[in-house]
Amino acid sequence: MKLKKNKRWEKAVKIIPGGNMLYSKRAEAFLPEFWPTYFSKTKDVFVWDLDGNKYTDMIFAVGTNVLGYNNLTLEKDIIRAVKKGNMSTLNCYEEVQLTQELLKIDKWAGMVKYARTGAEANSIAIRIAKSFQKSKPNIAACGYHGWHDWYLSSNLSNRNNLNYHLLKNVKTAGVNSKLKNTTFLFRYNDIERLEYLLKKKKIGIIKMEVERTIKPDIKFLKKVRNLANKYNAVLIFDECTSGFRETLGGVFHKYKIFPDIVTYGKAIGNGHAITAVVARKKFLRAAEDTFVSSTFWSERIGFVAALSTINMMKSKKIFRLIKKIGKDIKYRWLEIAQKNNIEIEIFGKDSIPQFKFKNSNQIYKTYFTQEMLKKNFLASNSVYVSIAHKKNVLNRYFKIFDKIFKNISTNDLKKIKSSIKGEIAHTEINRLN
Amino acid sequence: MKLKKNKRWEKAVKIIPGGNMLYSKRAEAFLPEFWPTYFSKTKDVFVWDLDGNKYTDMIFAVGTNVLGYNNLTLEKDIIRAVKKGNMSTLNCYEEVQLTQELLKIDKWAGMVKYARTGAEANSIAIRIAKSFQKSKPNIAACGYHGWHDWYLSSNLSNRNNLNYHLLKNVKTAGVNSKLKNTTFLFRYNDIERLEYLLKKKKIGIIKMEVERTIKPDIKFLKKVRNLANKYNAVLIFDECTSGFRETLGGVFHKYKIFPDIVTYGKAIGNGHAITAVVARKKFLRAAEDTFVSSTFWSERIGFVAALSTINMMKSKKIFRLIKKIGKDIKYRWLEIAQKNNIEIEIFGKDSIPQFKFKNSNQIYKTYFTQEMLKKNFLASNSVYVSIAHKKNVLNRYFKIFDKIFKNISTNDLKKIKSSIKGEIAHTEINRLN
Repeated sequence: MKLKKNKRWEKAVKIIPGGNMLYSKRAEAFLPEFWPTYFSKTKDVFVWDLDGNKYTDMIFAVGTNVLGYNNLTLEKDIIRAVKKGNMSTLNCYEEVQLTQELLKIDKWAGMVKYARTGAEANSIAIRIAKSFQKSKPNIAACGYHGWHDWYLSSNLSNRNNLNYHLLKNVKTAGVNSKLKNTTFLFRYNDIERLEYLLKKKKIGIIKMEVERTIKPDIKFLKKVRNLANKYNAVLIFDECTSGFRETLGGVFHKYKIFPDIVTYGKAIGNGHAITAVVARKKFLRAAEDTFVSSTFWSERIGFVAALSTINMMKSKKIFRLIKKIGKDIKYRWLEIAQKNNIEIEIFGKDSIPQFKFKNSNQIYKTYFTQEMLKKNFLASNSVYVSIAHKKNVLNRYFKIFDKIFKNISTNDLKKIKSSIKGEIAHTEINRLN
Repeated sequence: MKLKKNKRWEKAVKIIPGGNMLYSKRAEAFLPEFWPTYFSKTKDVFVWDLDGNKYTDMIFAVGTNVLGYNNLTLEKDIIRAVKKGNMSTLNCYEEVQLTQELLKIDKWAGMVKYARTGAEANSIAIRIAKSFQKSKPNIAACGYHGWHDWYLSSNLSNRNNLNYHLLKNVKTAGVNSKLKNTTFLFRYNDIERLEYLLKKKKIGIIKMEVERTIKPDIKFLKKVRNLANKYNAVLIFDECTSGFRETLGGVFHKYKIFPDIVTYGKAIGNGHAITAVVARKKFLRAAEDTFVSSTFWSERIGFVAALSTINMMKSKKIFRLIKKIGKDIKYRWLEIAQKNNIEIEIFGKDSIPQFKFKNSNQIYKTYFTQEMLKKNFLASNSVYVSIAHKKNVLNRYFKIFDKIFKNISTNDLKKIKSSIKGEIAHTEINRLN
């Protein structure tokens, strides 16, 4: 495929701040000027752009579509819901059925509240937890938890605080400065820092991702749970990215370490908007008493999507397959890299394998994305594994992967850099026009 | 229809805080123990409950479905979007097309950002505005703006503050207490209070509903705009409830008084989740620089729903019809009330007419809802007018309305009260079980 400048994106950034709605779907994250950026349709492992080009997708909507695109069962369920009606004066009973399903998965819990975005779900969790912690109102957080003030305020005291959790130099303009020193960050596996915060910073809430790129040290997770008990802090696991990808529910199930509240998102509706806050029964009354309410949280599609997705995930041993594919990808990446004498670092969960070039990563990554695109692949240094990543798809992918790595190994950096059309992919928040 | 206790709702409140996702769709808001609460399907003006009972709906999902239920054009557009794919690694171009549409409607504006709930849209608007007001970080607010901390914190200094804007005695447990005295409320038409706040309270943002139940005094709106200019405050209109109901866009278009930022919700997608933040061009850069991003804001259904809805609203002179129906309802309410010597107060926009019994309103209102329900109508003291409220529907409605009012006029309060099955409808946040 011939690369083509994306005029539509240039137009979009002039009328939509950032150009789109999800930071990690900006053209700048991949191949700034030549990324196709817009799609017309999807099917299985394929995405078509507006010019009719067909791509094989290794990024899979940054993680929402574990079951692949346009899963027929889900599609049928959604269309039935749309035809029956998405919204009415009465509520849809699927919200109760989904709750029953989630409480079967999370037997330690006793209540569920729903929202439509991960940031909302996390703020609901914080609100509920906070109402229990009047004398210890502060939060210790680790990982990525969305765009809301309670989280971004952790950068108010130092604009590097979030560098290891979100993006470099996240700006805090517009975040309420009164929230300075109310959320404190700790890094993964740094139990000393967490205990220090619990001792010194009036922490009543521990909010963390169970597993992102670093494999969780089971001892660390156990210690976190013990510290939460010892200091009487509410432990919230954010499984918006990690949930329903390697296990039915949160990855914490693998480690048998249970939170007080967990949030789910992304994969739970296989591409439809639905997020959940699952909490221990003791939070029910508090959650009832605080005013948390939104019109569109009552729409039906989200609940139907989650019910349908969970039902398939239960019956089809999806997770074993996903992990197997992910492990295979990691293995073959390494094999090809070694064969070509290219040093790469491989990390991430098996369901989201990632690699990084040890040297000049941004340049090589951009080059890699460009060359994959020329061969009609949407690919970067992360694969969001889907069951649509079948053997023949991976074989096609690795054939091109091999050629690109050979090019990298036989050409010097300058040559590689000069063959990149347009800008290098961005890594941090930059002005877009 | 025979009234039947709703066992399903009793079960729901034990596992979902508040029982559902939208406060105003709780059974307690209507007929606590006997409200059907759950629906199976909808069509035009009708809603079916889980037992197969068919109701004529006067409440219309508390305002999302101006075009009626299951509008065929919209349904076709949504199903096409689902079949083509709701989510992918690439973005859907409908987000750009919708932006172009909205900027045609709001020619004073230059950028749009989208979310999936009204509260999110309002918090994005606050974030953007705030980044312009470092020395004046506080907010003056009037009306209802959702569940987020920035708004509920106005009740931290006194739990009666929100009584006139939201609900009585809204609890603030879980709201960050550091936000005390950062949002200050002013009541509709109270320009002196607003100017006092601007002078004394470091207000950089004025956030208000343009029209809720009180007809806007055009002079008041003009004065608000002038004060915003004088004190260099960002003026945000929240049109989540009022927009796309009486005008294409916000009701402020009727008054030709323009905000700096406006938020739209509810009716804009005729029952599908989509909300928008429309702002002047000068905010584009700031909105780009702050981290505001969410996975599910990039799903396609919301954009398609809004494009389809706006297109129909443009071409069909919907608004004239909506207002005509609403005016007719107000007229006939009054006529019947007077005929039966019952004192009622009529208020609200023509698109959302409301009435209130001058005496013992909660009891009569509950009785009214119960008797309407017996005749298979979902009805309370507000009608959310839809184009599905055709002549024959209204004639059926008013025939029953007349009979109920005759009952009220010929029976004493005690008799009416004793004929209500179960509890009286709730008016404020109460414990649900």
